[in-house]
Amino acid sequence: MDENRHSLTELAQIAMMLEVCASRKPGNVDRCHDYPDTWLEHFLASSIYCRPALELAERGEGSVGELIRQATMLTGKHRGGNTHFGAFILLIPLIMGGSVQGACRIIRNTTIDDALQFYDAFAHTAVRVHETDELDIHDPAIADKLRERGMNLFDVMAYSAHNDMVAREWTSGFSLTRVAADLLLDENKGRSSIPGVFLRLLAQEPDTFIAKKFGNLAAEQVRDQARSVLSGQESLQELDEFCIREGINPGSLADILIAGIFIALCEGWEWDQ
Amino acid sequence: MDENRHSLTELAQIAMMLEVCASRKPGNVDRCHDYPDTWLEHFLASSIYCRPALELAERGEGSVGELIRQATMLTGKHRGGNTHFGAFILLIPLIMGGSVQGACRIIRNTTIDDALQFYDAFAHTAVRVHETDELDIHDPAIADKLRERGMNLFDVMAYSAHNDMVAREWTSGFSLTRVAADLLLDENKGRSSIPGVFLRLLAQEPDTFIAKKFGNLAAEQVRDQARSVLSGQESLQELDEFCIREGINPGSLADILIAGIFIALCEGWEWDQ
Repeated sequence: MDENRHSLTELAQIAMMLEVCASRKPGNVDRCHDYPDTWLEHFLASSIYCRPALELAERGEGSVGELIRQATMLTGKHRGGNTHFGAFILLIPLIMGGSVQGACRIIRNTTIDDALQFYDAFAHTAVRVHETDELDIHDPAIADKLRERGMNLFDVMAYSAHNDMVAREWTSGFSLTRVAADLLLDENKGRSSIPGVFLRLLAQEPDTFIAKKFGNLAAEQVRDQARSVLSGQESLQELDEFCIREGINPGSLADILIAGIFIALCEGWEWDQ
Repeated sequence: MDENRHSLTELAQIAMMLEVCASRKPGNVDRCHDYPDTWLEHFLASSIYCRPALELAERGEGSVGELIRQATMLTGKHRGGNTHFGAFILLIPLIMGGSVQGACRIIRNTTIDDALQFYDAFAHTAVRVHETDELDIHDPAIADKLRERGMNLFDVMAYSAHNDMVAREWTSGFSLTRVAADLLLDENKGRSSIPGVFLRLLAQEPDTFIAKKFGNLAAEQVRDQARSVLSGQESLQELDEFCIREGINPGSLADILIAGIFIALCEGWEWDQ
């Protein structure tokens, strides 16, 4: 046992832990805020429970879809609902590939079976499905449709990219993940940078998880409020309190932040300097 | 991969996570309080990093002293100093034995080599050594002394039991661990019980970690203040603020609380009901 080596699995777990602890993150569960049914401890338990699936990804055993499904099912051992489904969509290929470039190769080579496994995982989460979505995960004929169209998991993500920013990371070469990682690496101030990086992601693009729950206008309003906080016209506390009052949680950006922290850790960023 | 089974390793990690998040715990790191050099995240990272050693314990591979040493060295990957050394002294035999009764058999059969491995781990932590301690861990002749006296790790714990309540758990059949587990099981209210159980431990016995740093009187004073909180004469917040101001952290009782949460989880207690 090499007591000093950090495995990619551990770095991913540390990224999940650091993201959820970082405070304040407007509207999201953090060190200072639980939702009634989803707590800090649910996210932390999730980061512990998922390890066997992340280890398989690190050893290259199993396919992307299968491992996203396994990680999601493992985290279902707690009662806090969906905690890291979006994060696994990013972390599993990043771990398998060992880098953004490696992940891009991996996701290009996914199969229809990966897509089916992904839909199976999706059906087990409490993630709200876009009501107009033609590829409805509750549609028993989904397998036939995917086969007919010859859609692998990359194609499914491309299909969803217009209204799902986690899916868009697959088609954009993990561009926001890269932005988050670079902000952490450039600032080089450890965990204290994380809330500021989250705010900058929030100011950059409307969170599609908010858009799915409350519509595009609500997501754009939160983006604009984040810009107001950055320019000093509004306080972070006000934005956080507004989001919590309205039940607005920018969950997709939190998933991307996890991936960004993971990449930064892989590239030598130190969280506790 | 059985996606519903909880391994003992995972239950131990969940116990470590739940303990450190639980707030308020007077004087200790918790969800609402860091020390300048030791943060919530250090304890959580420690609960992630230690997993390989806990897994070996669960598989019965390795000796008690060796695995306490390995777990301690693994958690040294963060920069927060000693986080869970005391907890591992309890968790490793409890995991190896699968229960309090099993752990009691395991610790009776430890060897001189276990004692040497333990001292090696001890030397790597920032734990303050009792200055009058004759078996000084920095004494290069410690191995000879242990061999001369024929002391195994159980004997070392018995030797330390008068001034170390974690060691005393070994000689008392994990009596305070059992008290904590029974309080959690009886109350049956999940994570919300944890701060109250900590307070009751604090009111029951003077914490020996406080005694080592500040003397017996200080430890007894904190015990008496915890009793005042229980009887409503003092507020929990006052006690917490007093401890933080004075740098008084009841670290040994936190270690025992982790072991108690672990045993409760093993016996069916549900933290997120």
